[in-house]
Amino acid sequence: MINIGLLGLGTVGSGVYEIINQQGLFFKNQWNEDIKIKKVLIKHKEKERFVDIDDNLLTLNPKEILDDEEIDIVIDALSDREVAYNCIKNALENNKHVVTASKAVVAPNLCELQYLAKQKRKAFLFEASVGGGIPIINPLKQMIEVDNIVQIEGILNGTTNYILTKMYEEELPFYVALKDAQHKGYAELDPTDDIKGYDTARKLSILSTVAYGQKVNFDYIDCYGIDKIAVEDIYAFKEMDLTPKLIGKSKIKDGNIYAAVEPVLVSKDSSFFSVKDAFNLILLNGLNTGELHFYGQGAGKNPTANSIILDVINIIKGIYESENINIDDNTQEYKPLGFDGKYYFRFTFKDVKDIDLLLEDIVQYSQCKLIKENKNVIAIFEWLSRKNVDEIINKAQGLGVDYFYSRIDG
Amino acid sequence: MINIGLLGLGTVGSGVYEIINQQGLFFKNQWNEDIKIKKVLIKHKEKERFVDIDDNLLTLNPKEILDDEEIDIVIDALSDREVAYNCIKNALENNKHVVTASKAVVAPNLCELQYLAKQKRKAFLFEASVGGGIPIINPLKQMIEVDNIVQIEGILNGTTNYILTKMYEEELPFYVALKDAQHKGYAELDPTDDIKGYDTARKLSILSTVAYGQKVNFDYIDCYGIDKIAVEDIYAFKEMDLTPKLIGKSKIKDGNIYAAVEPVLVSKDSSFFSVKDAFNLILLNGLNTGELHFYGQGAGKNPTANSIILDVINIIKGIYESENINIDDNTQEYKPLGFDGKYYFRFTFKDVKDIDLLLEDIVQYSQCKLIKENKNVIAIFEWLSRKNVDEIINKAQGLGVDYFYSRIDG
Repeated sequence: MINIGLLGLGTVGSGVYEIINQQGLFFKNQWNEDIKIKKVLIKHKEKERFVDIDDNLLTLNPKEILDDEEIDIVIDALSDREVAYNCIKNALENNKHVVTASKAVVAPNLCELQYLAKQKRKAFLFEASVGGGIPIINPLKQMIEVDNIVQIEGILNGTTNYILTKMYEEELPFYVALKDAQHKGYAELDPTDDIKGYDTARKLSILSTVAYGQKVNFDYIDCYGIDKIAVEDIYAFKEMDLTPKLIGKSKIKDGNIYAAVEPVLVSKDSSFFSVKDAFNLILLNGLNTGELHFYGQGAGKNPTANSIILDVINIIKGIYESENINIDDNTQEYKPLGFDGKYYFRFTFKDVKDIDLLLEDIVQYSQCKLIKENKNVIAIFEWLSRKNVDEIINKAQGLGVDYFYSRIDG
Repeated sequence: MINIGLLGLGTVGSGVYEIINQQGLFFKNQWNEDIKIKKVLIKHKEKERFVDIDDNLLTLNPKEILDDEEIDIVIDALSDREVAYNCIKNALENNKHVVTASKAVVAPNLCELQYLAKQKRKAFLFEASVGGGIPIINPLKQMIEVDNIVQIEGILNGTTNYILTKMYEEELPFYVALKDAQHKGYAELDPTDDIKGYDTARKLSILSTVAYGQKVNFDYIDCYGIDKIAVEDIYAFKEMDLTPKLIGKSKIKDGNIYAAVEPVLVSKDSSFFSVKDAFNLILLNGLNTGELHFYGQGAGKNPTANSIILDVINIIKGIYESENINIDDNTQEYKPLGFDGKYYFRFTFKDVKDIDLLLEDIVQYSQCKLIKENKNVIAIFEWLSRKNVDEIINKAQGLGVDYFYSRIDG
């Protein structure tokens, strides 16, 4: 008998509960093991549930799971990251395997929790934390045993991709598209983490840390979101036959790690061009393997729950130890560099006299195409170093000029 | 010390040899195991080699590998499928793990060899047999432990995809594009297996057998190739804004398995549209997971060798037993059904009087758009059952009328 403690019974948690209950008999035939959810941590007893569940299984006290010696595996599907972190740490300390879907916990604490799991010879698995239903963490762990991954690039956040698709196809202002995403349940009431790119940066940090075997702290990743895109930008993108995507990208070259999250304008030739709505696409580049693409539903109840169960199965099969990765916990945390490239800038001036003030300076950085329209100036720079990009931003901010920028990859 | 016997030193075999030699030290650090290629089976001693290799390692006699009790793992990278089959069987009987890249051996013998491996408690792994460097077999094996796969669809053969890309983009006749593919080393001197779709059918058979847990014999899969496509067809496809791809597809519904390999016309909205040259794209549909895409280099020295090494690592880590799949060997072999759908037909008549003879009959099957041009008639049927398709083919053949057909998925 394998006893599971489930933390959280929201969308993902109830998906996990349903799959385990439906598949129980199948699991038993396959590995001759009964799998049972023994206890479920919830926040409020009275709340209406998505699933039909015996009240006796529910508890408000994490200790009833974490201190229960009969519970072998703890599945974390909590939304509160601090509670989740404490529970995960405590579960590992109490010699339980842990599976989590929480990128907000994994990203900053991957090395610490992985190290703790190794000491305890228990599993710390997090397939569901990146790419929802797409199997990406486990294949990546396998790949790095043979090949050198040199680049990762991806649309890693379904919410922003939905908003961008909506803005582009219907020429809507950002806040209208955001509202629609909230209405459809894609975006949360406080959408900051998604639209500012923090969620993407967390996932990029997890993928990069696994791939390069070095801490790539998400706090240090250059991160620029999509909330400043205006309808005027959408018109300009269409004019150029490009579409905007929020892309997290990292690469390792000559021992340096480069990483950034930023809007990128892609052309029809790009694999990202046709990734619509809440789907995710992740590109890995290996020296032997070449470029691999992984595409699927980046979130959602069943896809994410399915990824969690895959990790649980690996624990039951006893192959988890080989899935615990090696990260040198002693290496200095890496402060990654951003990307040079072709860049799009839109400046919106309150005062026309600021236009020359800003432009005469910055057009010296690179060959540059300027399109002026009333108080808007669009500047397309042929090649900017990341340092130049930051300087331009600083100057615009100094003059109180509103701006939006995006790398161009098309 | 893990001793490996390598069968074959062609493109893939020499890739395997190189990676193991380069990575040897890394493997040792990671699992504290020395990995050594002890013997390599070749066909001719005098041939020029792609790799720098000690003559003492080479042998012309398979028994020097298969009977060597010190050899733990046999890697098959042979081109002769009969020799390969005998060696693999013999290796398993002699208690050796086997890793193979040969779809021509795996497709018809998967159940038998898998069963033998289980009896011997050894590994029989074949990640490299489908999709070259794309990790697809192992992720699929993991998925089916939790989810139900209901559909598989893929561009599984790089050679035909290269030829179709060439024909479409440069409006070339089939044989010119084929010659170019042979010149570039994509197509073999005898290209039958590729252009007739047999190679795709073998890979589809392997994926389907693993996914559905039932024998899906490739001999029974409806299989129509690309060698009858004419430049006139290419013109017609462009007129319709569609592009031809050779697609293997299978699905399971109400207990019935459907499977076919055939040219399919896809629109810009299809994920297959932008798969060019020798790349592969495989779509899996799981009930929980939804649609997943796997894309990458479907062949080539390094990608394929890398997949082989991934299997070897799984053996060394001792997790291979869980990778041996369950197929009920007692189930009747499944004769899969083909696909109904919208169909494109081009008939080329030697004698104009045959036109009416053929058409008056077959236009009754479905709503149908006819385009006549000299001795060519293009017919686009809104909906044909697979039985109708076969009847049309039989009638055309009976009249000695040249034809090409393709399903339309756009």
